[in-house]
Amino acid sequence: MRKLYKIGIDAMGGDHAPAEIVKGAYMAVEHYPDIEVTLFGQEEAIRKHLPVSHDRIQIIHCDDVIPMDVKDPAMAIRRQKASSLVVASRAVKQGDIEALVSAGATGALIAAGTLLVKRLKSVDRPALAPLLPTVKKDKHTILCDAGATSESKAHFIYQNAKLADIYAKTVLGMNKPKIGLLNIGTEDAKGGIDQQEAFLLLKNDHSLNFLGNIESKSMISGTVDIIATDGYAGNIALKAVEGTAKDIFSLLKEEIMSTTQGKIGGLLLKSTFAHIKETINPKTVGGAILLGIQAPIIKSPGSSDAETVMHAIHHAKKAIENDVINKIDAALSTSKDDSLT
Amino acid sequence: MRKLYKIGIDAMGGDHAPAEIVKGAYMAVEHYPDIEVTLFGQEEAIRKHLPVSHDRIQIIHCDDVIPMDVKDPAMAIRRQKASSLVVASRAVKQGDIEALVSAGATGALIAAGTLLVKRLKSVDRPALAPLLPTVKKDKHTILCDAGATSESKAHFIYQNAKLADIYAKTVLGMNKPKIGLLNIGTEDAKGGIDQQEAFLLLKNDHSLNFLGNIESKSMISGTVDIIATDGYAGNIALKAVEGTAKDIFSLLKEEIMSTTQGKIGGLLLKSTFAHIKETINPKTVGGAILLGIQAPIIKSPGSSDAETVMHAIHHAKKAIENDVINKIDAALSTSKDDSLT
Repeated sequence: MRKLYKIGIDAMGGDHAPAEIVKGAYMAVEHYPDIEVTLFGQEEAIRKHLPVSHDRIQIIHCDDVIPMDVKDPAMAIRRQKASSLVVASRAVKQGDIEALVSAGATGALIAAGTLLVKRLKSVDRPALAPLLPTVKKDKHTILCDAGATSESKAHFIYQNAKLADIYAKTVLGMNKPKIGLLNIGTEDAKGGIDQQEAFLLLKNDHSLNFLGNIESKSMISGTVDIIATDGYAGNIALKAVEGTAKDIFSLLKEEIMSTTQGKIGGLLLKSTFAHIKETINPKTVGGAILLGIQAPIIKSPGSSDAETVMHAIHHAKKAIENDVINKIDAALSTSKDDSLT
Repeated sequence: MRKLYKIGIDAMGGDHAPAEIVKGAYMAVEHYPDIEVTLFGQEEAIRKHLPVSHDRIQIIHCDDVIPMDVKDPAMAIRRQKASSLVVASRAVKQGDIEALVSAGATGALIAAGTLLVKRLKSVDRPALAPLLPTVKKDKHTILCDAGATSESKAHFIYQNAKLADIYAKTVLGMNKPKIGLLNIGTEDAKGGIDQQEAFLLLKNDHSLNFLGNIESKSMISGTVDIIATDGYAGNIALKAVEGTAKDIFSLLKEEIMSTTQGKIGGLLLKSTFAHIKETINPKTVGGAILLGIQAPIIKSPGSSDAETVMHAIHHAKKAIENDVINKIDAALSTSKDDSLT
């Protein structure tokens, strides 16, 4: 029998930290008997939100916190050595914990992963891979990269597809995940030189189930399992989807509340609206994994409540359990050798 | 008193061509006494849809048509010399007509503009500048470039902002249009090298009202008048907005129709839904202008009905009337000289 899965959590990161983070950690150990959680942060504040002490929860006190609106994440990681995120990242690097979960600033978590936990030698750039909700029931699409790397090069895009493919197969148990290349048209030779080169790299890799180009209008249509892209375009597409959904629901609410007939109609459709919001809400999915780093790092949304944190912890557990890091390293080392021949 | 504004229309381009295109042209001459329309296309088909002959509508017969789903637009423009789009473009180039409107394939229109009507020497790359609907009443945002050019360079992004700025001031009558640079975060130094360089070019040009970076989550929020970006990211962002809105409304319809309570609620909110769809519907705005070309070229949506075509024709008229081409050329020639010093 395997020992416990050791998962570290930045208790100070998130809009509702430390309260919801600590509650989520408690829910997770109660729910999953095979995990052990280490909370990094201000001990007094953490203890206040822990209902009772638990033999599978330990606390490592950290004096400092990297704020949600940190302006220069890389600088913060270098300077704020006593911050919960830096101390937790060092603990992952040293192997004291096996995976890291944070609902703190995305930029800071990516910087901590890259600078402290470090990149796998086989991977050129890290990639953030959120599971996007889609309009198809229980169907999610992996977007890779959603913004960890802003440089756009054909080989990075190709590696993002490989990273997501291995993650989908090992952690999510998908069989032959369908891969689309995000582009400005569906024809083969679309886009700039990087998209055209990435298309050929993907097409010639017969280990991948590559379907061709996909347009951003299909972001939440659920037509593919993986949308491979550079971090710049991925981030633009992701935030456009989020912003549009948010703006439409705000406008809907405003218009409904402006007339009596609207209010009655809105009341009758209350559960419908809630269900649609739930369908396209990424919260329940368990956060985004940062791929290409030497340990699983899970970014839980900034707005995470306890339940979301619990799902992110479960996500981290599945990543350790399925040995995604070694499988990525093995596959990407091979593909790196191939590209040199 | 000025002579008539001479506007050419590709009568064969569009999902509902030639019927709706011809009707739209007729509506336009009836509505605006100072325009004269030339319809390019198959004469017999055009005459069938023209209620009566009109002294300000002429027809130039063309044997061939470039289809909506043309795979290689540049090749089609070179080879299909008798097509309505090619003949119309040559007529613009020769000065027989002053502006061109088409609801045909976007790629073909961009290729026709670039290869036949030709770029202004002062402009490095053409840019497509649609007016995006926003959730703010009667407020639109210009996206420039929405996908005419797929290369991303700092100077192209900067020129896209300049092009949109002059267009906004001269054709749309905006005063000091607020410009945002599409980026993956709102802080100054965000994005890759091209975004960072474009940021500095925009910041140092004091003729522009540059507000800084804007994220794609604000695409339809109406916070700026102009979103400047490269054509690749612009196209990705635009289609993500369109696809998300479409997917949400489809899901909404499906869920509403699945229960009796939903159907009643849906009936009560029918006008609300229609109004929201109308609010975020780009159709009424008059199409997208292709900037950087030697004459005004207006892309009307592929799905254009007669009214949409009429709006696009009016848009073309305003572009001629306000001399946007010469104003662009003057401003961009100056900025080109500046950048050499």
